[in-house]
Amino acid sequence: MIVVTLLGSGGGMPMPNRYLSSMLIDYQSRKILIDCGEGTQVSMRENKTGFKTLDIICLTHFHGDHIYGLPGLLSTMGNSGRTESLTIIGPSGVNEIIQALRQTIPYLPFGVDIIENPQAPLSLYPDPASGGLKLNHGSAEAKGKVEIILSTLKLHHSSPCLGYSLYIPRRPRFYPDRAIQQGIPVRYWKRLQQGETVVDGKHIYEPHMVLGEERRGIKLSYITDTRPIDTIPTFICRSDLLVCEGTYGADEDQEKALKNKHMTYREAAELALKGKVKELWLTHFSPAMDDPEFYLKNATGLFPNTILGHDGITNILRYSPARTS
Amino acid sequence: MIVVTLLGSGGGMPMPNRYLSSMLIDYQSRKILIDCGEGTQVSMRENKTGFKTLDIICLTHFHGDHIYGLPGLLSTMGNSGRTESLTIIGPSGVNEIIQALRQTIPYLPFGVDIIENPQAPLSLYPDPASGGLKLNHGSAEAKGKVEIILSTLKLHHSSPCLGYSLYIPRRPRFYPDRAIQQGIPVRYWKRLQQGETVVDGKHIYEPHMVLGEERRGIKLSYITDTRPIDTIPTFICRSDLLVCEGTYGADEDQEKALKNKHMTYREAAELALKGKVKELWLTHFSPAMDDPEFYLKNATGLFPNTILGHDGITNILRYSPARTS
Repeated sequence: MIVVTLLGSGGGMPMPNRYLSSMLIDYQSRKILIDCGEGTQVSMRENKTGFKTLDIICLTHFHGDHIYGLPGLLSTMGNSGRTESLTIIGPSGVNEIIQALRQTIPYLPFGVDIIENPQAPLSLYPDPASGGLKLNHGSAEAKGKVEIILSTLKLHHSSPCLGYSLYIPRRPRFYPDRAIQQGIPVRYWKRLQQGETVVDGKHIYEPHMVLGEERRGIKLSYITDTRPIDTIPTFICRSDLLVCEGTYGADEDQEKALKNKHMTYREAAELALKGKVKELWLTHFSPAMDDPEFYLKNATGLFPNTILGHDGITNILRYSPARTS
Repeated sequence: MIVVTLLGSGGGMPMPNRYLSSMLIDYQSRKILIDCGEGTQVSMRENKTGFKTLDIICLTHFHGDHIYGLPGLLSTMGNSGRTESLTIIGPSGVNEIIQALRQTIPYLPFGVDIIENPQAPLSLYPDPASGGLKLNHGSAEAKGKVEIILSTLKLHHSSPCLGYSLYIPRRPRFYPDRAIQQGIPVRYWKRLQQGETVVDGKHIYEPHMVLGEERRGIKLSYITDTRPIDTIPTFICRSDLLVCEGTYGADEDQEKALKNKHMTYREAAELALKGKVKELWLTHFSPAMDDPEFYLKNATGLFPNTILGHDGITNILRYSPARTS
């Protein structure tokens, strides 16, 4: 399971009544943060998320409302006693941005690994030594331990921007009775469970001999800031939760959305519908919108399971027994 | 008169219940900001100060809790439609810091003039064209228009740090009856009022012929982060208001104060007493202090007119009729 917390739901500028859009994902007490505008660390404190176990920071893009909380957060993480290295992922230019911000941080007791504009999905696994989420670069120790697949999608905004999705694969069910029946030694069961083929002399044991059918995992997607482009529905397809920008609530703001390369609630709901997601959270509300709730029907009319995101809203996503393929 | 607002009173890290130490000075609807930690612009919004009329930003030093709100504030000022240039003043290194932060701001519609570690007091005057506060570099148009004198003092912290004081001079009283009595033409009165000597043929008119005795202006001082060094009492001498760090309330935290190069409440009160200031506001409270008020007597016992600073506390400083020298 993963626990998802929306740390903030505002766009553009930090406001007294709303933190800037940012999301925290807790997987077995280790954390992934998406975006970090000014005040994100204060929202983390309010939501009691802790700072020491944050392993991955994903940046959608480099507009201030998505990154200006970063130098403060890194400093606070440094003060929390963290020494394990941290990974920051972002679109083209992330190396340069982090380098600039780090000039204002005199000292950090941990390393920062930067992944710029990844071209393929990234595999994450919990490092046995620290428990922290690490990138699987295909090392022997990481083999078979992939627990999160992190994918990115190029979005269409006024600066290079990435959408993110997380997939927590679910292993097929293991049937010990089948293993016993086929005389497979117990010492190989774990490797077979992990999907490995085992060769023992003339015997070849394959995972399908002891495993049930494929099972769906948990999928979470985060889409901001962007116009609703054609590649999004496939990228977010069948997400258990889609967190998506709805910068403008009113349909009349469609022109503004076009001009500023954002979306209306209705456009976000259309994406949720096309992507067959289970639930949609709207976020990244324009500071000019006094009452984001007023326009909610513009989304729910199209996609009923739309929730108006708010600071601190949280959800637990679990493997679903009903979804077997 | 000037209006002083403490935008925040915390030190170290931004917290849910307290903004980071920052002060705003309003002089004839133009603004000077001292320090800008993460969240300062949100406090400005809460205190309805506006962004467009901020002309000068003074940075005490470059620890995150004093500067990480800067890129966001500059962006918001840019969005507010400001086009007049802004002046940023700071200790050695301010050019480099601002350059690094500006790499994260794609576009600003106004120029930024930087003054690094000023070696003499700076004179400010309202620019006749825009009304904005400008630095008087001795130009003809600025002559006689100095309305604020901004001084700095090298403090003793773990990084280069400046204290600031503002002095609003008060012109001596002008006596028209003396001018008439001495046959001084009306066309010279204004220049004499401004302290200028006027030569008209064989007549020499001097200001003392029409002006009363010197009058005290308004003085405001801001001291953080630092140990209580010997040069401070002279620098803050007879301030109407001293805003001073009191990172630690308990006398038992004296060792921490020494180690981290900060002050206790008692040390701040000692400075206020030695500097013969009228009122002391404590600020920059350690986030580890649950109840800063609990220790207030450690300051008031020594300097009774001590106020525990809090976010949004404001005061109007006026010329005092009782103070004539």
